[in-house]
Amino acid sequence: MRFIHTSDWHLGRTLHNQSLLDEQAAMLQTLLKLIEEHQVDALLIAGDIFDRSVPPAAAVTLLDEFLEQVTLKLGVAVIAIGGNHDGQERIAFGARQMAGAGLYIQGPVAADIKPIRIDGKSGSAFFYPIPYAEPALVRHLLELDIHTHEEALSALIERALAHDNQGLPRVALSHCFIDGGSESDSERPLSIGGADKVSPSLFYPFDYAALGHLHGPQFKGQQHVRYSGSPLKYSFSETKHNKSVTLVELRAGEDPQITLLPITPRHDVRVIEGYLDALLEEGKTSSGREDYLMVRLLDTHAILEPMAKLRAVYPNVLHLERTGLLQERSITGPGRERMQKSELLMFEDFFNQVQGSPMTEAQRSLMSELIASLHRGESK
Amino acid sequence: MRFIHTSDWHLGRTLHNQSLLDEQAAMLQTLLKLIEEHQVDALLIAGDIFDRSVPPAAAVTLLDEFLEQVTLKLGVAVIAIGGNHDGQERIAFGARQMAGAGLYIQGPVAADIKPIRIDGKSGSAFFYPIPYAEPALVRHLLELDIHTHEEALSALIERALAHDNQGLPRVALSHCFIDGGSESDSERPLSIGGADKVSPSLFYPFDYAALGHLHGPQFKGQQHVRYSGSPLKYSFSETKHNKSVTLVELRAGEDPQITLLPITPRHDVRVIEGYLDALLEEGKTSSGREDYLMVRLLDTHAILEPMAKLRAVYPNVLHLERTGLLQERSITGPGRERMQKSELLMFEDFFNQVQGSPMTEAQRSLMSELIASLHRGESK
Repeated sequence: MRFIHTSDWHLGRTLHNQSLLDEQAAMLQTLLKLIEEHQVDALLIAGDIFDRSVPPAAAVTLLDEFLEQVTLKLGVAVIAIGGNHDGQERIAFGARQMAGAGLYIQGPVAADIKPIRIDGKSGSAFFYPIPYAEPALVRHLLELDIHTHEEALSALIERALAHDNQGLPRVALSHCFIDGGSESDSERPLSIGGADKVSPSLFYPFDYAALGHLHGPQFKGQQHVRYSGSPLKYSFSETKHNKSVTLVELRAGEDPQITLLPITPRHDVRVIEGYLDALLEEGKTSSGREDYLMVRLLDTHAILEPMAKLRAVYPNVLHLERTGLLQERSITGPGRERMQKSELLMFEDFFNQVQGSPMTEAQRSLMSELIASLHRGESK
Repeated sequence: MRFIHTSDWHLGRTLHNQSLLDEQAAMLQTLLKLIEEHQVDALLIAGDIFDRSVPPAAAVTLLDEFLEQVTLKLGVAVIAIGGNHDGQERIAFGARQMAGAGLYIQGPVAADIKPIRIDGKSGSAFFYPIPYAEPALVRHLLELDIHTHEEALSALIERALAHDNQGLPRVALSHCFIDGGSESDSERPLSIGGADKVSPSLFYPFDYAALGHLHGPQFKGQQHVRYSGSPLKYSFSETKHNKSVTLVELRAGEDPQITLLPITPRHDVRVIEGYLDALLEEGKTSSGREDYLMVRLLDTHAILEPMAKLRAVYPNVLHLERTGLLQERSITGPGRERMQKSELLMFEDFFNQVQGSPMTEAQRSLMSELIASLHRGESK
């Protein structure tokens, strides 16, 4: 049994108000090629398929067209569970009718975890889809005294393990936060405090646990209890991640073979730092000039419309930090004299940029007087 | 070929802020029984399945559970098209995977109308699902000079009729406004002016046209070009409608046999008119006291909290009109003397209701003086 495990697609997400739908479409094309190339029997999506409960209609269409390719054109089964971002009732619509076409979507958690048997070219296995669920919901559903995510998941897993797997490998799908997992800025906490954390050992009885929620690829406790991570970078805290999907091969009596298949984005998400002129010069020959960028400018003087200047070279600058100005301010402090000098300097920069030539001595002295008189006026 | 034609379910709709989901669930139960009882081969839903593009999650679940019963338990095919209220991309998600289970949902209009062949116990037929579409969309899709609904629908129907139907009966599904159709308050106009109207003759070549949009059951031009109407009353302008679904039987070489199957709602939508005391008395023994009511009160005097009094007997009063007060005002006009008299009378009513006994002569004269002095104060 060979499958690809992925999660946290967040279709429809924006990054600093920039739609990422084209990036997501390109990522799905890459994934499609990997599915074909590696001849997998199934694709597992461990939650947060969409970014929110009501995604944009274009994101719905994007997923629909991708799933048509995978299930109907390639004949590869897809097993997906709802994450904490998904509208579980919405993604589950028609799921029972889709199952016949090899598309298994588990929306709201059910009292019984329904095993899905996939008989692939490379072997058979049982898959146990456990969607994200609030502990209160599981308490109500199972009529048990459940208060934490650990208790909820433990009860659900117990039910999954009670199923007779006929000696076949067992794979769990779950969207949860395992204790000690490394977080990034783009995951929405499951609950306040530490009550959202679960122990990795819950998943040890499975042959593989395909997890979703954390955006960095990682395993917890044992190699086979694993987050695939998101296939795209969804915040500037993820710039150092190597994004991938996880290829898993299960063989009877052996540890699962795990390979991370890198996903190269059409445009990367990066942070660049430097002086404006140098960055603009660099950008002219940079292959990554269309990347999604956070720019940290080291210049310590005022700059007219720095964003517009940067975007003329780097069209996808999403965020700008004036690191240089911040540092200068924190060194010198905001004394009155310094403030006056600084205002004159700022105006000089402004004048220079608008006129294309520096101020004359007469102009400088006029401006200096004007600033001083404004300050006297303020203190009256 | 025997099928039931229905439309305009508007799942998730509210009537004067009252959720109708329980009514809609009861209606679907009734429909389920009719499907079983009449041994139909298919259920056609001619648009406006949901009330809006993003329906409440509970409405999605309600439809999902109903469709499971029809397609998977009863093995009856369902063919549904999007109406002007539906989010076409959203209802179409997974449609290609659902088709194998006999659930055919046509969301956004496609350049080619895809015929669906149903081979039922009582014969075979081709169904042509034509969802609601703006003329501009059809113009773009077909690259034709299209500006009106008539032109758009005509071009789409031409494509449907070009299909080789192998001598089998042809059934169109369409969500449109046929010229001369009788409207009610709860249909949202398709466009401003008359450009939304289409001619019934467009549909004459079909053996049956299953139409949606208008909420009253009716045929247009010829018997087989037909609106099923909504199965529930969705405004007080529909109180006189007899709601139903349409049972259709197609036999080779014969006109289709058409039978309206009445849908009796759990609670009716009605207008009642009368004097408060009489209505309250009547309500004690009325079997329809839980109906959704608009009440027209004929009383000409002020009444303290009439809505609360009515709801104590009729829990689902949704709207109240003080017909009596309006008439009295329009007869007498708003003269100063009359106004003063009326204010005293209103206070007498109020006093009577709060105290449970009429004012004494002394109280009445005190109040009369107070009102007069207030009016003098106003005119200073």
